[in-house]
Amino acid sequence: MRIIDSATLAYVAGFLDGDGSIFFQIVPRSDYRFGFEIRASVAFYQKKSNAEILNWLKEQFGAGYIRTRGEMCDYTVVGRDEVKKILLLLRPHVRLKKKHVELGLQILEKQENLETEKDFLEVCRLVDKFGEINYSKKRKQTMAVVKAHFANNSLPP
Amino acid sequence: MRIIDSATLAYVAGFLDGDGSIFFQIVPRSDYRFGFEIRASVAFYQKKSNAEILNWLKEQFGAGYIRTRGEMCDYTVVGRDEVKKILLLLRPHVRLKKKHVELGLQILEKQENLETEKDFLEVCRLVDKFGEINYSKKRKQTMAVVKAHFANNSLPP
Repeated sequence: MRIIDSATLAYVAGFLDGDGSIFFQIVPRSDYRFGFEIRASVAFYQKKSNAEILNWLKEQFGAGYIRTRGEMCDYTVVGRDEVKKILLLLRPHVRLKKKHVELGLQILEKQENLETEKDFLEVCRLVDKFGEINYSKKRKQTMAVVKAHFANNSLPP
Repeated sequence: MRIIDSATLAYVAGFLDGDGSIFFQIVPRSDYRFGFEIRASVAFYQKKSNAEILNWLKEQFGAGYIRTRGEMCDYTVVGRDEVKKILLLLRPHVRLKKKHVELGLQILEKQENLETEKDFLEVCRLVDKFGEINYSKKRKQTMAVVKAHFANNSLPP
């Protein structure tokens, strides 16, 4: 990630507030310690004709990938460390997504100290809360699903 | 309009690039010298739940109005002078809409020196061009309409 000046960060924060999205997903993963991955993402969406701005964003952050789907494309950064860096950079500048950034950082920090199922469920609770502030309606993997999974499976030592 | 610091302007430029719109309309107006008004607008759209950011924008610019339509609301600034001020402020910061800002300012400047029907048609031509870079498909009032109007009507002195 290059060093980004504060006017550019303010611009990106405005762009994120207008057009972008921060989201967290609970993804079933049998190879993960708790049976689920907590996946953090930051995404920007544009018409294909405006893909250039997404390339520029990708250059700024030096992370993520650009996908094209029909007439739309998106630039998405996935992953705890990269998303945390971006949220910390944009934190002083965002307005609309202030709550998202604060809650997102809270989730990412809690993820760094996961000891017990209880800890993991607490992260899942915050992810559910994040889904609510995103008005996300399609989430299937929630804290309740993880809780049920824990009830039916014993953790490996 | 209050004095806006450059980080805030960069933020607003990003917000405009992500979510906003600049557009020009040719509006039939029998009380106007050439029979049409060239109407300049800058608009920002948000879900009703995010109306607060639109109020904040309105405070920054000290112009325009906020409307609610169902679940959506918009903050729109209409008018040559106000739109020109906003475009000049955002000009150093926009990225995606650089072309829009430059062409918009060109239209607004040409409007300040309208002498002849030919001058007015030239502005209409630029407004048509603006519609193209906006991928606007619903425009009915175009340079061709104004030209036909001129052919059928003699101008008052």
